[in-house]
Amino acid sequence: MKTQTILMPLDMHLHLRDTVMLENVAPLSAYSFSGAIIMPNLVPPVATLEDVKAYKERIMASVPNDYFEPYMTLFYKNYDKKFLESVADEISAIKLYPAGITTNSEGGVSSFDIEEMRKTLEAMSELEIPLCVHGETDGFVMDREAEFMSIYEMLAVNFPKLKIIMEHITTKEAVAMLDKYENLHATITVHHLLLTLDDVVGGMMMPHNFCKPIAKRPEDLDALLTVALEAHPKVMFGSDSAPHPQHAKESCGCAAGVFTAPIALQLLCEIFEQYDKLDNLQSFVSDNAQNIYGICPEFKEIVLEKRAFTIPEHYGSVVPMYAGQTINWAIESVE
Amino acid sequence: MKTQTILMPLDMHLHLRDTVMLENVAPLSAYSFSGAIIMPNLVPPVATLEDVKAYKERIMASVPNDYFEPYMTLFYKNYDKKFLESVADEISAIKLYPAGITTNSEGGVSSFDIEEMRKTLEAMSELEIPLCVHGETDGFVMDREAEFMSIYEMLAVNFPKLKIIMEHITTKEAVAMLDKYENLHATITVHHLLLTLDDVVGGMMMPHNFCKPIAKRPEDLDALLTVALEAHPKVMFGSDSAPHPQHAKESCGCAAGVFTAPIALQLLCEIFEQYDKLDNLQSFVSDNAQNIYGICPEFKEIVLEKRAFTIPEHYGSVVPMYAGQTINWAIESVE
Repeated sequence: MKTQTILMPLDMHLHLRDTVMLENVAPLSAYSFSGAIIMPNLVPPVATLEDVKAYKERIMASVPNDYFEPYMTLFYKNYDKKFLESVADEISAIKLYPAGITTNSEGGVSSFDIEEMRKTLEAMSELEIPLCVHGETDGFVMDREAEFMSIYEMLAVNFPKLKIIMEHITTKEAVAMLDKYENLHATITVHHLLLTLDDVVGGMMMPHNFCKPIAKRPEDLDALLTVALEAHPKVMFGSDSAPHPQHAKESCGCAAGVFTAPIALQLLCEIFEQYDKLDNLQSFVSDNAQNIYGICPEFKEIVLEKRAFTIPEHYGSVVPMYAGQTINWAIESVE
Repeated sequence: MKTQTILMPLDMHLHLRDTVMLENVAPLSAYSFSGAIIMPNLVPPVATLEDVKAYKERIMASVPNDYFEPYMTLFYKNYDKKFLESVADEISAIKLYPAGITTNSEGGVSSFDIEEMRKTLEAMSELEIPLCVHGETDGFVMDREAEFMSIYEMLAVNFPKLKIIMEHITTKEAVAMLDKYENLHATITVHHLLLTLDDVVGGMMMPHNFCKPIAKRPEDLDALLTVALEAHPKVMFGSDSAPHPQHAKESCGCAAGVFTAPIALQLLCEIFEQYDKLDNLQSFVSDNAQNIYGICPEFKEIVLEKRAFTIPEHYGSVVPMYAGQTINWAIESVE
């Protein structure tokens, strides 16, 4: 039987939430990943050293063993250098949200005034703290990411030593930025390697495929697949796995977020095999991230096997992407 | 108090469904409209003289008085001239669906082969039976209508005496066709004069704003508003009001369709007043349709009043667009 081994898989963009949901989803990521960049958009956001430490403790208490490293992040605000020095050892990045752009982002940045942000971003450059960015404007839904490119350019040019991660990119415009600015990197989700807007509203309306940024056009999907499949050294896997309880996804006014953490590696095997690029999967799901973030996760070996795997209808209260569908790869063992 | 009188309003694209749903929604349209073009996409579709007569009888039995004229349509197939002659007096148009493109359209046209369609379309031209078309390809959801323009052009050029109605247009490309071919006309819904894709998936996911064709981009909305507000003589109001039971709209895999019949005139007053074009509303909701279809509805006078009106949460089992929201116009009297 065909197998695929992945060493130290890393999920460079993960929502673990808190309390009951944290206890439900954290073990699922901890099972198949060595570590993950943990998003700070709790209510209230993770914005102090105490917040970071306490949230990390809650995460560690929710996973069954120590083989999972939560790489913590801070919610972006304008911080002073002294504070950043005090917190630098405890975090792997700072996550910037435009205000109100997605779930629990109300306290984010409302205007991208370089001078207002300069002190914080220069301190981050010096302290080598990467800046992770949710790159969307408040424009028309299909244009929001492309419109944000000028802000990425402004950040990249003004802070050339700042490592900037364009999170969960969804457009050919964002892909094109990777080779334009040395300090721009990107994460790509697995669902954005599979979906276009057709899978959200092209047939029936599919809430479990609804996320922000929304899945875009076929040519955008092609551009994302190109850099992911070649494991472009500036792209990393980041699931943006975002659990919501079933009732919040299937009601009128459904929340944005696709839950993929427990099925991400299986889906990635399927995609990379389909394009005959399994040799590049290790770089996409681990090595590139290690290089970009300068991290060395503990040893973990995941063996996937090519056999039918039916995705569960639920993981606790959460419905995963492709619930009930059968895919071609399954996790065989974790060591 | 400011009032607006509309004489003989006509809804030139209406779904009344059948049985219990028909009994629920038909009285709502009959209350405020003089008549409506009735879509034939029942299961099975309305495709024989007997079907047309029987469906018309069921509709008339569902409305409380005779002041409502259901202008019947036939589901497009390749029909022979003899049959069309036999049915011509009973129908106002034939509705063409590309196969599988929307609700109950499985028996529609699967390839637009002019030679296969020629006999039917020439007979329709001679008998002066308009062709109503759901103009979407099976391409990417945002491109489906624009891609269909070449088929409209082919039909318009090959059958210059055929009156073709581009139903529920949603794009600037369709608007541009109106002045390009004399025999192309269009209906426009009220929801496509209010919504863009932002209102469907730009914030939360809004199933009650989800329809086919899907609401498009801001520049498309602008183009539709331009021709509607000026009451371009080739455009008519057609609600495409499409009732589904609440559970079918608010579940995972929700059905396409926006229910507006009982609130359409109120919303149109609000839109036309906002742009200071109330003088053109009569043409948009009645006169243009009378001219295009050559119909003379019985007298009916609707007086709307400018006052707060809160849209009901439900009409029977159906949730209308903007349920629970308060708008500025209400129906004051019907005579």
